[in-house]
Amino acid sequence: MHIDANDLPQQIVRALQQVCGQGPVALHEPRFSGQEWEYLKACLDSTFVSSVGKYVDRFEADLAAFTGAKHAIAVVNGTAALHVALLLAGVERDDEVLLPALTFAATANAVHYCGAIPHLVDSSEDSLGIDPQALRAWLGTTARREGGVCINTRTGRRIRALLPMHAFGHPCDIDGLLGVAHDFGLVLVEDAAESLGSWYQGRHTGTFGLLGTLSFNGNKTITTGGGGAILINDSALARRAKHLTTTAKLPHRWSYVHDEVGFNYRLPNINAALGCAQLEQLPGFLASKRHLFERYREAFSSIPQVRLVAEPQGCTSNYWLQTLLLDAGVEQRRDDVLDATNTAGMMTRPAWELMHRLAPYAACPTAPLPVAESLARRLINIPSSAGLA
Amino acid sequence: MHIDANDLPQQIVRALQQVCGQGPVALHEPRFSGQEWEYLKACLDSTFVSSVGKYVDRFEADLAAFTGAKHAIAVVNGTAALHVALLLAGVERDDEVLLPALTFAATANAVHYCGAIPHLVDSSEDSLGIDPQALRAWLGTTARREGGVCINTRTGRRIRALLPMHAFGHPCDIDGLLGVAHDFGLVLVEDAAESLGSWYQGRHTGTFGLLGTLSFNGNKTITTGGGGAILINDSALARRAKHLTTTAKLPHRWSYVHDEVGFNYRLPNINAALGCAQLEQLPGFLASKRHLFERYREAFSSIPQVRLVAEPQGCTSNYWLQTLLLDAGVEQRRDDVLDATNTAGMMTRPAWELMHRLAPYAACPTAPLPVAESLARRLINIPSSAGLA
Repeated sequence: MHIDANDLPQQIVRALQQVCGQGPVALHEPRFSGQEWEYLKACLDSTFVSSVGKYVDRFEADLAAFTGAKHAIAVVNGTAALHVALLLAGVERDDEVLLPALTFAATANAVHYCGAIPHLVDSSEDSLGIDPQALRAWLGTTARREGGVCINTRTGRRIRALLPMHAFGHPCDIDGLLGVAHDFGLVLVEDAAESLGSWYQGRHTGTFGLLGTLSFNGNKTITTGGGGAILINDSALARRAKHLTTTAKLPHRWSYVHDEVGFNYRLPNINAALGCAQLEQLPGFLASKRHLFERYREAFSSIPQVRLVAEPQGCTSNYWLQTLLLDAGVEQRRDDVLDATNTAGMMTRPAWELMHRLAPYAACPTAPLPVAESLARRLINIPSSAGLA
Repeated sequence: MHIDANDLPQQIVRALQQVCGQGPVALHEPRFSGQEWEYLKACLDSTFVSSVGKYVDRFEADLAAFTGAKHAIAVVNGTAALHVALLLAGVERDDEVLLPALTFAATANAVHYCGAIPHLVDSSEDSLGIDPQALRAWLGTTARREGGVCINTRTGRRIRALLPMHAFGHPCDIDGLLGVAHDFGLVLVEDAAESLGSWYQGRHTGTFGLLGTLSFNGNKTITTGGGGAILINDSALARRAKHLTTTAKLPHRWSYVHDEVGFNYRLPNINAALGCAQLEQLPGFLASKRHLFERYREAFSSIPQVRLVAEPQGCTSNYWLQTLLLDAGVEQRRDDVLDATNTAGMMTRPAWELMHRLAPYAACPTAPLPVAESLARRLINIPSSAGLA
């Protein structure tokens, strides 16, 4: 069937309406159809609404059980989780951290909070995450191992960590990245903010690196209002994470002695109460989001210039944000599609501006980014709420 | 009447029991006797539980109205508020910031987050806050003004800001501190984390400096679970505060362009819903806490070696934490008092460890601290919940 490229925006509007109805439809809305109300009331009645309370403990235990991580430490948001995870990974002032140019600003910001410098690398079209082959080739020309440490030969700075992000919930090529991290002496930290409920070869994202982080912002698969968590398998590191995410106070009956600079990042009990209720519904949300993917696949099958992104081989994706990729031949129509869909009340958005195009990161070390640049020109997120399925 | 010093701990236990009953009694508990449940339910039903929502807007407007600040920006906690306030005050890496040695660690930590160095100074026995006369004398020997900038002549670093903290809710000598800030070219930022509901000469604490900060942690006069706010009179600065406490994204129908490093510190709507309900009850809480002070004054009037700290002249204190000061002659009994009271189920605590005694701040520039040292040996906080009155 021939599609007139001039008609493409309206074709996409109609495909969205076929799945979502007439709208208006948000990009991603939370759904509170479980015990949210009961847990919030119980939390309020207990008067323990703040940083100590049974819902925080339970939420952490439930997250650990769900993800298979040995420990989960709940914090105020995913950015805070990433900040402390990087500190625990040994990232120091003036280190570099490798991360994808195609990510949300928080990934780079967390590196900046450590006084470190993002070093931006390319993505793969299969996973939308860091491409291990391209990364290996890039490091081969710009880095060397020196006494177990990876040095950027151009800047002279230590490259301490590799920070992949599982974009829109699709697991990136973790085996490939673990190989690069091993060969170049890098600590792997996973930004799994978008991938709660996503598995790579049967193991949950965020549990492969030394540390991984989750987000429960209002637009995520489950929400605590604002919230995040650090996933850790090492128990000593988990104790350090609890210490640093509080005020680093030493336990004592009454004394106030803090042996380090803490960050006061603990998730309040009332937000954790919401999280416990949300987590109970996660399997249902994931099933709904997978069903929504099937419905979109059907609806978009008649538009050959558009590909709906599917989970990578060997992976189970949470399908957090459903993603269209325009063919390169029609990529110049992207803004028309964004305009037509948003005007029709179907909320859509393009990829994040690539990190090296943002003022604070314009001067960062940057690998060639042919794939990320192409993806950024062609990518459109479409309405993805579990409630749409 | 003669009191045997050996009996002092039990005298104090009996005075506490006279006011609080047999216990156990917490140091400070929140009270949810207003519209908390209704607002939480309305927030949940709206599905706007995260960083956008009408309760955040309303909480900010209500805080501004209550304090008289032109703008209030709600954030995840008081530490985050202080971090951004200091950045907006122009505090940069390797600057120094003057703050009391007698404070909670968060005051110093926020300075550290900016890459700056706490410079610790002495307190006054009247207000428990920074002593302006001692500060002026200290700066006279260690600082000089050079082209409008204050330089520490010993370290060579710029001293950028003066950061007083209103300890336990008692306003410090703001006029005196404003005079020192003016004469030495320092920006005044107020840590009013403990003093919501405290006024200095009829004006609310936190509104005298270029910026001021509040906390709504679970142990504060009102709570949002975890939360804080920045108070600002300058509208351009308030816009910058909103920008930096989010992800610094430029407004656009769909694009994700961030022109600065943001901090993702915005208070979730669900926490703000709690805050709106709590703020409605604040006048009642303040009346109760003042009444509790009167009851303690009566109960402790028969123990001459103990003074109950009263609001400074010309000030109205929120009496956040009621505070006993032991006479110097019996200060060696402090730990016995702490032990006896806590053993009796009356939760009490000493002053925070002075900042220069904490490992992360042991090497910081430090003025002579005769008063802070004395206060730290003699000070005991006693149960202070509004519900005790």
